[in-house]
Formats: sequence, structure tokens, C-alpha cells
Amino acid sequence: MKRDLVTISDLSNAEIEEIFHLADTYLDEMGAGERAHQIRGRRSDAEGYLMTSLFYEPSTRTRFSFEAAMVRLGGNVLGTVDPVTSSAAKGESLADTVRVMQNYADVIVMRHPSEGAARAAAEYVEIPVINGGDGGHEHPTQTLCDLYTLYRENGFLRDLNVLLVGDLRNGRTVHSLVYGLARFGANIIPMPAKGFELPGEVTRRLQEEYHCRPYAKEELFGGTEDMPQIDVIYVAPGSSLHMSAIPPQQREDAAETGVNAARQPLAFDVCYVTRLQGERLSPGQKLGVDYPVIDTQFLRGKRYAETRVLHPLPRVNELGYDLDKDPRGLYFKQAAYGVPVRMALIAKLLDLDPFRTAERPPAAKIYSHRQGMPCGNARCITHHPSESKHLQPKFWLVKSSRMLARCCYCETDFEVRCYVDLSSRRIATDWDAAAALPASDVVLFASEKDALAAGFRPAQAEGARRPA
Amino acid sequence: MKRDLVTISDLSNAEIEEIFHLADTYLDEMGAGERAHQIRGRRSDAEGYLMTSLFYEPSTRTRFSFEAAMVRLGGNVLGTVDPVTSSAAKGESLADTVRVMQNYADVIVMRHPSEGAARAAAEYVEIPVINGGDGGHEHPTQTLCDLYTLYRENGFLRDLNVLLVGDLRNGRTVHSLVYGLARFGANIIPMPAKGFELPGEVTRRLQEEYHCRPYAKEELFGGTEDMPQIDVIYVAPGSSLHMSAIPPQQREDAAETGVNAARQPLAFDVCYVTRLQGERLSPGQKLGVDYPVIDTQFLRGKRYAETRVLHPLPRVNELGYDLDKDPRGLYFKQAAYGVPVRMALIAKLLDLDPFRTAERPPAAKIYSHRQGMPCGNARCITHHPSESKHLQPKFWLVKSSRMLARCCYCETDFEVRCYVDLSSRRIATDWDAAAALPASDVVLFASEKDALAAGFRPAQAEGARRPA
Amino acid sequence: MKRDLVTISDLSNAEIEEIFHLADTYLDEMGAGERAHQIRGRRSDAEGYLMTSLFYEPSTRTRFSFEAAMVRLGGNVLGTVDPVTSSAAKGESLADTVRVMQNYADVIVMRHPSEGAARAAAEYVEIPVINGGDGGHEHPTQTLCDLYTLYRENGFLRDLNVLLVGDLRNGRTVHSLVYGLARFGANIIPMPAKGFELPGEVTRRLQEEYHCRPYAKEELFGGTEDMPQIDVIYVAPGSSLHMSAIPPQQREDAAETGVNAARQPLAFDVCYVTRLQGERLSPGQKLGVDYPVIDTQFLRGKRYAETRVLHPLPRVNELGYDLDKDPRGLYFKQAAYGVPVRMALIAKLLDLDPFRTAERPPAAKIYSHRQGMPCGNARCITHHPSESKHLQPKFWLVKSSRMLARCCYCETDFEVRCYVDLSSRRIATDWDAAAALPASDVVLFASEKDALAAGFRPAQAEGARRPA
Repeated sequence: MKRDLVTISDLSNAEIEEIFHLADTYLDEMGAGERAHQIRGRRSDAEGYLMTSLFYEPSTRTRFSFEAAMVRLGGNVLGTVDPVTSSAAKGESLADTVRVMQNYADVIVMRHPSEGAARAAAEYVEIPVINGGDGGHEHPTQTLCDLYTLYRENGFLRDLNVLLVGDLRNGRTVHSLVYGLARFGANIIPMPAKGFELPGEVTRRLQEEYHCRPYAKEELFGGTEDMPQIDVIYVAPGSSLHMSAIPPQQREDAAETGVNAARQPLAFDVCYVTRLQGERLSPGQKLGVDYPVIDTQFLRGKRYAETRVLHPLPRVNELGYDLDKDPRGLYFKQAAYGVPVRMALIAKLLDLDPFRTAERPPAAKIYSHRQGMPCGNARCITHHPSESKHLQPKFWLVKSSRMLARCCYCETDFEVRCYVDLSSRRIATDWDAAAALPASDVVLFASEKDALAAGFRPAQAEGARRPA
Repeated sequence: MKRDLVTISDLSNAEIEEIFHLADTYLDEMGAGERAHQIRGRRSDAEGYLMTSLFYEPSTRTRFSFEAAMVRLGGNVLGTVDPVTSSAAKGESLADTVRVMQNYADVIVMRHPSEGAARAAAEYVEIPVINGGDGGHEHPTQTLCDLYTLYRENGFLRDLNVLLVGDLRNGRTVHSLVYGLARFGANIIPMPAKGFELPGEVTRRLQEEYHCRPYAKEELFGGTEDMPQIDVIYVAPGSSLHMSAIPPQQREDAAETGVNAARQPLAFDVCYVTRLQGERLSPGQKLGVDYPVIDTQFLRGKRYAETRVLHPLPRVNELGYDLDKDPRGLYFKQAAYGVPVRMALIAKLLDLDPFRTAERPPAAKIYSHRQGMPCGNARCITHHPSESKHLQPKFWLVKSSRMLARCCYCETDFEVRCYVDLSSRRIATDWDAAAALPASDVVLFASEKDALAAGFRPAQAEGARRPA
Repeated sequence: MKRDLVTISDLSNAEIEEIFHLADTYLDEMGAGERAHQIRGRRSDAEGYLMTSLFYEPSTRTRFSFEAAMVRLGGNVLGTVDPVTSSAAKGESLADTVRVMQNYADVIVMRHPSEGAARAAAEYVEIPVINGGDGGHEHPTQTLCDLYTLYRENGFLRDLNVLLVGDLRNGRTVHSLVYGLARFGANIIPMPAKGFELPGEVTRRLQEEYHCRPYAKEELFGGTEDMPQIDVIYVAPGSSLHMSAIPPQQREDAAETGVNAARQPLAFDVCYVTRLQGERLSPGQKLGVDYPVIDTQFLRGKRYAETRVLHPLPRVNELGYDLDKDPRGLYFKQAAYGVPVRMALIAKLLDLDPFRTAERPPAAKIYSHRQGMPCGNARCITHHPSESKHLQPKFWLVKSSRMLARCCYCETDFEVRCYVDLSSRRIATDWDAAAALPASDVVLFASEKDALAAGFRPAQAEGARRPA
């Protein structure tokens, strides 16, 4: 059973820890530079293995850190496909491209503008696919590197207070990170640029799926705190999802709320800064004139005395150059950690150092039918002209206040108002009954009107449905 | 004596078989995947050898399969030159580029829009040059892979009935394949899109040079066959050019006509589909609205029960996605075979596994003179602005109903009406006499008018020429 | 203490010789081809080392010869960043790009359109940076290859008469070469295209810093020489800066003037041809219609009987194709020598074969102050939009007829009319006094007006300044 990394949810906490420990080993054995954070030399673990990278969008650090990781691990790298000089110019589908590439390489790293593209690619091929960014959806290896930096520099993740600054709406790295932090018990404190708040979808999932509790600023800061840009703090659950790597002593110290009592008034362990994702702005949308800038001036308060400043880079103007020599500025080290983390990931996915744990999330029921609803996200790979003719939408059901269908590719949620039971070809809304049916007998619809338009029969009258 | 692969004619049948057998060895030793068609791991045969690829036109599979082949063989690969970021932007000639590159690499793979470019490059350098496509001329490694797929999947090539579908006019892969099939005794059944028939030049060569016999459809199919898109079948010669790898038993089974009698009514062993070469259409030329589409619907008849469907990829709309899971669809496996075949080719050209046979076609007399006729093909490399100042046309003479000169670069044929014997500086038309002269004394002309314009003397009067 | 190669002045003569001798060793051990000038095979010296190349401008031979050198030495190469597909498209600064790249690779090769870019990059990172060309400034590895070709083919450099032909104004390779030749005792004979003369700055430095003596053509050629395109000959100093590799016998033969007396009338040992640097022409500037063309016709005289013709390539029209087969045409061999020379350079900079000599030029005092004068060269990296916010100009002082400040990045010289002593905040012009002050107390200004505008106090009156 081959493994991919498309979203950070593809890995269990235990597996992520295995990756971190393997990265630690590489740094112990090959680390150089001040505080041994740069990998030097070359191993032989991946001898005879080839990686190819398919980048349909610009990249420097993701592409090069993967290439460096593969070579440092002992493998080889094929050139990069870019959309201008490749067969994509001849109109080739992603499906065909990756199916051909799997004949040449042992692992594929890809970046694509369509959301869900990496998941689609992973389904097409029998070799591991690593998502290097798929539109506004996910960038899970960045999240792995971010979490590893926190783990490596702090020794643990649970109860860390993480300030998230900047464009929290469009940054794919931020959404992955938010879920990752919650899973490992860190607290999330959004400080968005105005108009660039975390999407409602993300905060909903944070609460409903990751069990974070929102606290109003006043509850934790006291009444007159001068932190106008913060409204809410998401406190991670105290015990259920923690990393086993957290030392027991530290766990006991943690307050019931999950916010470390010893560090009151609230101190920021981490300030994670992101640039404005200019390339993902809708046309006409204004650039934030008061986009927050993190520099030594901003970090002058007591709360920031020990703050580690991270940034996925590239930066534009939101991160002061004066931090480059400040010991709190860890972003270049964060970039360096990209190599050991990606080496460990490759080693795991290629089975060079197999996962020891079997702890994986249970597989959900998947609903997919050619007559059912399409994905409502226009940027989803299922709508891409070259893929739509052969790629049929797939959904999981997610229980929320409303019934939601989550696209298996782009992971966007949509309300489903009804379904059709194919055995009766009737429209129905009883989701408990639906759950008992085989998935292949259930067709999901966004509205009854759509189901009728598709030629199915109206729902039975109440009396008719439940005979005495 | 270094060897190149510019056209499939550069290799004798025996040499092609050597390549196939070596590819078989690689698959035996390194094959993985269902039915062991994917090469995995890395050998050490090419340790210390470097390949460079010069791609002046887009490519994915050719470029990557060569890179994979070189790395799997143990060698290394230099980055790819592309016309945008390379010195071609500074106006450098191909001649200079390849002569510089031979100092860096041990073998050059190149793709270029001008026909004959790879032959020119091969003349400029002392290291092997492999043609990865030169305009509408040739793409011989694709042909090698196509033939290898047939050989590997069928066990032999002779007497196979090969249906060729789609754009047979512009597809360079098709022309090479047609000649390759004829050489190995397979029968060719063109099914072109309307307006995209095999060029007359190709069918002429097929008959005159490869000794194929054209049969009208009715002769082989019987009177009322419902195959409107087929007009003619080219039956390969029965015995002279066959592959030695064909088992003797099978040879005896083969009917006198060359069409396998045991499989009457005619069955198609292979259906080779090609996309419309949109990028080679002349401006204003209409796209075929009834371009044939091969899918499970098309392949429903009895004749197609065992048909193996090949396609050089990328496909556009001419090949149904429903064939991807049909056991007859072999195009992804065909792409996979590109690696072992190219490994074997590189190993042969670099002399890592030297050719054992000396069987090579005899060298023809070459006619080249600065005053002689230019190549009449505007897309020939001899007309490329950066090459024309130092690259002089060269021709072989080909006997046909008319006297033809074949450009040694682009291999296009042109009628020659006369020549000049430099010893007398007189125009003449006696080709038997010309054949007896040293090639350096003979200047070819497309017409007497051109020869006069070049300052030569008119032909002698009949009486004067043959004194008693 | 890490070493870079940004300008040829970063290496002492003794170090350059070490590089040449190491290149000789590589050719002895791995050389192939006629006269063993091509490196074949692969060493293991650089096993486990990675090179990355950042090319913000087109390149073929520089990039590929570096890649070939690194691979032949046993190392590995990461893909090339190009400005279109990289994070430069997201507005990333060079500073951030190279600081990230040093986490992935062990050595950086870069080409950038801004003058001084490689020096800035070298300051940003802790790994060696090699300048592959920075705008119109320098291209030192080309110079190393040029000098090595002369050394290898002649056995020595001192007293060689080197004719420099073509665009001597814009060619960065020519300026480096001019200084390099002077340092090793070769004589320089400019033969520029009209309007493309050596810049006054270069001829000044040649005389003032490299101690070359200009002779009028008539002094060396006699009165009636027919060499209209030559005006002056720069004769290198006879003894001080020579290469130790010159055989003693040859040194004694050299005339007092430095021009080899034995070879009177003047013969040209080398003709170094350069193309018109079209891409560096100012808009509206005319292309030279009588740009000199070097071909067999030009080289027919006795003075050229033994001339070795070099050209950094690519050529356009200034170098005849008829020289390709002339034994005097050495430019392809010159390109081949790029590999062993770059191998040796990499081996030295990576400390795989450490420099044995400690002979290095003494460090100069560096003046840099945020209120001081900016660099006056608009193409200097200090003015690049992405760098100017964090990169402050730095200068050395150079004594000439006027007092000059040389930008430490782009190495352009500017007149400085005054300075401010920060202890008194007064403007002053006494440069001997300035020399005695700590550099951090001295702020340089192009004019007194600028210094006043920056808020400093006017110079003291003569009487007040020197109290009795």
C-alpha cells in the first residue's frame, strides 16, 4: 500500500513524530553550521532512487530543498517539468503526464495551480506523490517543516502560544499549519491583516473537528490589554491529541485551559508571519494598507522577549530586515530544516525507513456518482479542462450543524440538502438511513431541485414513507 | 568511428535487434511493476559518463525518459538547454553550441525545429548525437520504442497487421515507424484522417525502397467490407528484411502474400493512433472535424478483439480515456519501455556494450558543391539563418521513375534534371556517365536553366558528344 | 575563512598558478580527445558536495561548464534557478534567495544583471560564491580560462603580445582579462571597433594600478606600419608581477621594454576577439558598421603566422567560420579548458585541495555610512529595488590624480571632494588626516554641497583649523 503526502491529515501524529525523529538523526549525523542545522554530505539510503518534480507554478525553496534532500539522501533527481517547455504546452492532461512520469521516477513532487491536483495525481499513479502546493489548498511539507522547527527549537509543541500574522485567508501554508498546531496541542492566536482573516471554514473546522475552544481576548489578557489586532484565541484540547514527544513534566505544568499557566500574562512563544498572497487576490481586491509589519520595533514588548519569529519565505515587506541578526529571527533556520525533514519524509514514503506505527485515521465512506453534484469550487482540479472529462467528483460526508459534503480533492465543504437512494430512485433527506446504505447506492445533491432535474423521483410523502 | 542515431536507417536490423536484446536484459534484471515493464534501481555501466540534452522545442517524455535512462544506467545528466534561457538568445549557431557542448558531455540528445538539424550536429562533433526529433523529419528513438513494444508484447514483428490512425501526414513518428515496420516485415494499413494521408513521398519510398506491395482493400477484405476509412494495405516483403528473432515456425505459417493466412479475415494486431500535429499545420489549414477517435466503441468488432493500441502520447481527443483500463490499451507500457530501450541505445552508442555485428548499409556517393542546387525544403537546417553561412547542402542520388537527389540532412527528395561535369564544365544528363565520375566532379542542378545561370556551358549537341 | 571568486583580484598570482597546476593534473589524468584537452570520466574528490547555480541572465557555456566541472569532480548539481520560474517572480530579494540556498548547497555559482551582485551575495552567505558574470562588471572564471589557455598553449604568459579585438568597452570578459594579462606580464594591444574603445577608467587603472607603460604605435612598429586600427600598446612591467611558472631562460630573453626583442618586428602571439555586446548597448547607440572581422584573410600577414586566436564565444559575425579548421583557431579548445579550470577552482574553494600559499593582497580600509554618498553607478546592486533597503554602499579610497572612492560592490570609481569627521561633524578635505582616523568616523561625500545638505558643519576656516 503506497503512501502519499497530499494534506497533513495523510499522516497520523505518530507518523509525524517518526519523521521528526528521523530528521533529528540526520541532523545529528550530518548537521553543520552554527548549531548544526544545515545538512552537509551525502548518505546512500536512496541510492538508485529517482525523484521527479512537476512544478506548474514558480518555486525556489520547495523545489530546491526537495532536490537537495533527495541528493543528500543518496538519490538522483530528474529535471523539472515546467509548463512552458513541457508537453503541457501540447495540451496534455495531468493524468497522462503523471502516469508517464511514474515509469521514469520512483517518487513525484508536484506543485499545481488547481486545488486537489496532487490528490488526483496520487490516484493516477502507483508511486508516492508529494504535494508541493496545490493552489490555495495545502502545502503540507511546509507545515511539516514549520512544526519541526517549533519542535526542534522548543523541544515540544503542546501549549505553545502561536501568533499567526498577516494574510490568514489566502495563505495555504497557514491553513495547514493551523490544523497541525491544533493536533499537537498548541494554541492559535490569529492576528490577521484587516480583510485577511482566517476563513470561517477554517475556524469552524478548528472548533468542530479539532476541538479547539475559542476564548475572547479579554478572558486571557485581562480587561485593558493593548492588543487591538487580536480578537480571539483558539485553545487546543488539553490531552487527547498531544504529541508523545512532549516530556511528561511539561504536560503536568500545563493549565487546565491548555494555556500554560506558568507563562501568564500571556507570552507569545512563536510569531508566524506570512506575506500577502498577492497572486491569489481576486481582481479589484485592495492590498492591505495596514498590513502588519513584524520587526524589532513590533517585538519590543515583554510578551515578545522569547518569541521565535518564523516565516515561510519569500518575504516582501511584512518582515523587517532588522530581524535577520536578531536571535529571535529563526526563518532562515526554518528554511534549513526543510532539508532534513524532507529527507525523512522521502525515506518514509520510499520505505527506506518504514513507518513503524500502524496508527492511521479510519477511512471514510466515499460518495461518487456521475449524476451527482459537482464540486462547487471553481478552482478544484475536477473542473480543470484537461481533467474534467475523466475525473469524477468524490465526497465524504461531514456532520456539522448542516450536513456537509467535503470534496475528496480540494477538501472544500458544501451543504448537501438531499440524496437519492438508487434502489428506489427517490429523493430523501434521512441521513441516518443514508449512512446504512452502500455508498454506491447514494447520490448526493446540493438541492432537491437539482435531484429532480437529474430525473429522480420526488421524496415520498410523510405518511407513505412510514407505513404503520 | 563514432555512431549517431539520427534516423532509424542509421541502424541495421541486426543492430536494432541487439538493442532490443539488451533492453530485454535490463528488464529482466531491473524490471518492476505489474509484468515488470518499469525499470527501477541504478546500474554502474555508465559511471563517469555525462549526457546533455539540447531541446529547442518542448518535450516531456523524450527528455525525461532519456534522463531516466542515463541515470538508471549509472551516468549523470547536465541540465537542459532551452532556447529562452540559453545562448541561442545571443544568436549562437547550432554548430558552435554543439561543438562547445562536446567538451562538457559524452553524448548529446537534441530536439530542434529544423529538419536535418541532428544530422548537422552529428557532423559537427566527435561524440554520439541522438536525434530526439528534428521538425517534421524523424524521431527515431520513438520508433525504436514503438517497435520494441510490438516485439516485446508479440514476440515478433513479421506479418503483424498494423493499423495506423490519425494524422499520417505530419507525424514524424509515423513516417519513421512506417519504414521500420516495413524493414521488419510487418504490414501497414493506413487509416488517415481526411486530408492527413501518408505523403506520396512516403508511399513511394515504401514501395520502391522497402519493396512493400499495395493491395486494394477489396483484395484482402472481400467485396463488402464496412471499413470505409481504409483504401490500401501495404504488404511487406515476405522474406528479405525480416528480423532474425522471429521464430522459424511462425515464418512458415506466414502466407505467401505476407498477410498471415491463419488470421483471415484480416485482424488488426496493432492500432497505432496519433494526435493531430496542430503545431505543424500550415496557417489557414482546417482542423479535421472527423478526426478518427479510437475508444472501446471503435474497437468493438471482432477484428479488434486482440488489437494492441499504441499511441506515442501526448493524446488530445483522439484516444478515449475508457481505454486506459482496457487490457488492449498499451500506451503507458509503451512509454515505460522508453527507458530500457534508451538505456540500451546509450550503452551501444557509448560503446559500453559494443555492437557485435558489422552489418551496416553501404555508404552512398555524396554530391556537394557550393554552386550546386540548394535543398528545396525551406525547413531544412541548411536554410536556417545561423547555419546557412557554413553548412553546404549535400545529396545522395536516388533512382526512381525520375532521377532524385535526397538531401543528406532533411532527407527530402528533389528531381534533378541535369548535372555539370566539372572537367568539361558542360551540362549533361547521362546519369550512367555521372556515376562513373568522382563525386567531387559532379554538380547537381534542378534544371538546365539553373546550371546555365551558374555560368556553365550548355550540353553538347548530340552529334558533337559522340564522335565516331 | 571562506573564499569567493567575485573578481579576478580575489586571487593572488600564486593562487591562480595553483589553480592552473591543479587543472594540469586533471588534464594529465583525465584528458581525452586530440591533444587531451577534454575531461572525461569522474573523480570522487567532491563526493557529497552540492553546487547550485543562480542564473538571472541567459547562459550556456558558463552554466554547463560549471555543471560538468562539478559532476566530473564527483559532486552533484541542483537545478538552475531562472528568474521566470523562481521566487524572484514573487519579489524575493537576492539577499534572501542566497541565504536560503546556502542551506541546500555547498557552493553557489551565480550570474546577475546588476553590477556587484555577486559580491553582495558573497557577503550574505557563509559558503563560497563564484561570480558567473555580474552585468558589465566582471566574469572572472572566463578570465581564468582565457589565461589558462594562454599558459597551457604557450607555457608562459609574460611578454606575450596580446591583440584585443572588437568591443573593448562593454565586454566584461575583456576588462578582467586586461588586468589579468597585466598582472602576469603580458603586453596589451587594443584594436577596438570604432566607438568601442577600452574605457578611460580601464586604461587609467592599467597604468596607475598595474604599472603598464603606454607606447605609441610608431615607437614599436616603426614609422610606416600599416596597422591603422592600433594606436597604443600597453607594455607590462618587466619583473614585479610575473608568474613564477615562466621559465628563467625566457625571462632573460625579454627586452627591457618588456616587449620580446627576439620577436621584432612585433608579432602577435594572441588575437583575442570579442563580439559586440548588443544587449549592453545604450538605446539608440549604433552598431559598428566597421566592426573588425577576424578570419584567415585578416590573419594572412607575417605578424599573424603564429597567432593563437581566442574568443569567449558565442560569436556572431566577427569571427570567420574559416578559422574553425585553421590550427590557429583555439576557441573551441579554450571552451574545453573551462572544465579543468573550473574543477580546480571548485576544489580550491571547497578546500578539497586547499590553497598552499598565504600570499593575498592586504585588506583596504572600508568606508560605509548611511549618511554618506551613494554609489554613482545606476546599475550597481546597491540600487537594485530588492536590495537597496538593506544594502548600504561601501567604498575603498584609491589615490589617483584626484581622490577616488571605489564601490566595493560594482568597483566603479567616483571622485570624492570631501569627507566628514564624525567626531567634529565638520567637513574636511585633508586626506592624510582622514587616513589616520578610524574608518567608522569618516563619511565620504561627492561634494561639499551634499555634505552640507546632510546636515554637517562647513569646513573650518584656514586660520581656525590650524591654531598657532
